[in-house]
Amino acid sequence: MAEERLYSSYLFLLESLELPTTIPILEEQPDKVEAVLRVTENFVKKVLKESPHLIPPQPLKKVEILQKMIKEEYITYKVIGTVSSIFTEPNGTPRQGSMAPLTRCKITFLKWVVPEVALKELSEFSHCLVYFKFHLNTNTVYHPLVVPPKRGEKTSVFATRSPHRPNNIGMTVAKIIRVGKDELYLGGIDLVDGTPIVDIKPYTYADSIQADTLQVPDWLNNSSSIKSIVKFDESVFPKLKQLVPTPFYSTLNDFVDVVEEVLALDIRTIHMQQKHTVKRYGVLIDHINVTFVQSGDQEVTVVDVEKCETAKFHSKE
Amino acid sequence: MAEERLYSSYLFLLESLELPTTIPILEEQPDKVEAVLRVTENFVKKVLKESPHLIPPQPLKKVEILQKMIKEEYITYKVIGTVSSIFTEPNGTPRQGSMAPLTRCKITFLKWVVPEVALKELSEFSHCLVYFKFHLNTNTVYHPLVVPPKRGEKTSVFATRSPHRPNNIGMTVAKIIRVGKDELYLGGIDLVDGTPIVDIKPYTYADSIQADTLQVPDWLNNSSSIKSIVKFDESVFPKLKQLVPTPFYSTLNDFVDVVEEVLALDIRTIHMQQKHTVKRYGVLIDHINVTFVQSGDQEVTVVDVEKCETAKFHSKE
Repeated sequence: MAEERLYSSYLFLLESLELPTTIPILEEQPDKVEAVLRVTENFVKKVLKESPHLIPPQPLKKVEILQKMIKEEYITYKVIGTVSSIFTEPNGTPRQGSMAPLTRCKITFLKWVVPEVALKELSEFSHCLVYFKFHLNTNTVYHPLVVPPKRGEKTSVFATRSPHRPNNIGMTVAKIIRVGKDELYLGGIDLVDGTPIVDIKPYTYADSIQADTLQVPDWLNNSSSIKSIVKFDESVFPKLKQLVPTPFYSTLNDFVDVVEEVLALDIRTIHMQQKHTVKRYGVLIDHINVTFVQSGDQEVTVVDVEKCETAKFHSKE
Repeated sequence: MAEERLYSSYLFLLESLELPTTIPILEEQPDKVEAVLRVTENFVKKVLKESPHLIPPQPLKKVEILQKMIKEEYITYKVIGTVSSIFTEPNGTPRQGSMAPLTRCKITFLKWVVPEVALKELSEFSHCLVYFKFHLNTNTVYHPLVVPPKRGEKTSVFATRSPHRPNNIGMTVAKIIRVGKDELYLGGIDLVDGTPIVDIKPYTYADSIQADTLQVPDWLNNSSSIKSIVKFDESVFPKLKQLVPTPFYSTLNDFVDVVEEVLALDIRTIHMQQKHTVKRYGVLIDHINVTFVQSGDQEVTVVDVEKCETAKFHSKE
């Protein structure tokens, strides 16, 4: 793994400096060999000194990024809008929005897009594709292998929907609930509050692959199909009555239904399922901290709800 | 339409200059009002003088783009690979790759992505989502309304898959034919040769909406379902035997099948169907110029094939 990262970083560095990346070409251009070796040596020395376990893939200065951008090796997108969601943090956000159809968000568009004109006829479609930036990514290192939470093993990054990929672009399929003037209300979503949006496309028949034609690996099949039973402690309901209406759910039942949907998906990673001893977790849904305990192998019980901006019990120890 | 473009350009200009876009805020900041008015006046004067019918939406200098990029109002993606396709120009390229499953392309990935590691396990999926740049766009003006070729009427841009949108990002669903070391072979494609790729994601059940749940407008339904009959002039087959094998199709039958598939989709726009009097067209498929005539209302006949880099008879007059 360390060698792969080093190799990737080295190749990226060479390409950034417009130096050849293959040995035969290097041999044909002996005057460049020394430059490559000197730059590489200094680069590796510097990085290993600063952080022995990490190799940054982007040693480029901003000016160099600009130079590459002008040459169109980089593609630049403008943010067109921003998400307001019932999910304020990745923890608890469904990995597949379609499995939790009662979840809700809205996208508010920037004025220069002229959304009242550009969006209007999207209302003739039932679903849309939402393209966004994984804005909460903290990684600055590109890995060709990632560990999907529901698999728990290293997997080729392009064979996953991991947010940690060469370009931090995400896509989700959502139900169109309502097209407003400069807002779009969506259902069945996995978008976190504050997510920057870069495009909306209508979903057409060409985007749909019939189930009998589609094949996915077993690990993905299995992780999607198992659902937990969600119970509520009796003490929760009087508290809930004090908390609703929320921005997205106006009745007690609406909110209870969405909590059931979200927790039934088992939001824990393989690691959390295997390693955690304190089986008490918190998840923020629509600014309400929902505390629950793992009450059985495939059963969770909601034990508390509280209006809150940050989850008190996080799904980690 | 002119007012919408002017309004969009004006708002974008204000945002670019970090000036407020709403009247109330302008009123609260009287020192900025004069600057806004002066800049706007000069901008409008200049643009109207240079080109009375066009308002450019991006009057920003490169340095200003860099400033905005650093502030994360812009998102920058690196190209990860490039398409080699049987389609070398937009003319003839299917609007929906899934309707022409015999079409082929390959994506060659850049080395810094370490494709032999990053791609490998994608082979466990039958389909993938391909994210790319619409690199042949020549428009520099953003329009909130566009005219889809198969509709022929102005339509809200987010309700279309038009390449001319706020961000030139495209997406297509493709069949995975083979995962190579640093190459990915795809089928059922609508990608033009030279297209820059920004991401590949595996297609999962969550991306698929069942036909009974999905709704699209009638104009899209109708344009997708009608297929033409494709006939071949007898004189074509001896010529074809001289031309194959091509890079993607090794036998005569393979190539004939893909020509049938592509032409059955009726590659003409509404405008071409209604206005053209000379019903003779050319389309480049796998570097072979296929000349065909509209021999009936829903019937075309291939009359010539020729190894060629540019189509001789273009689908326009």
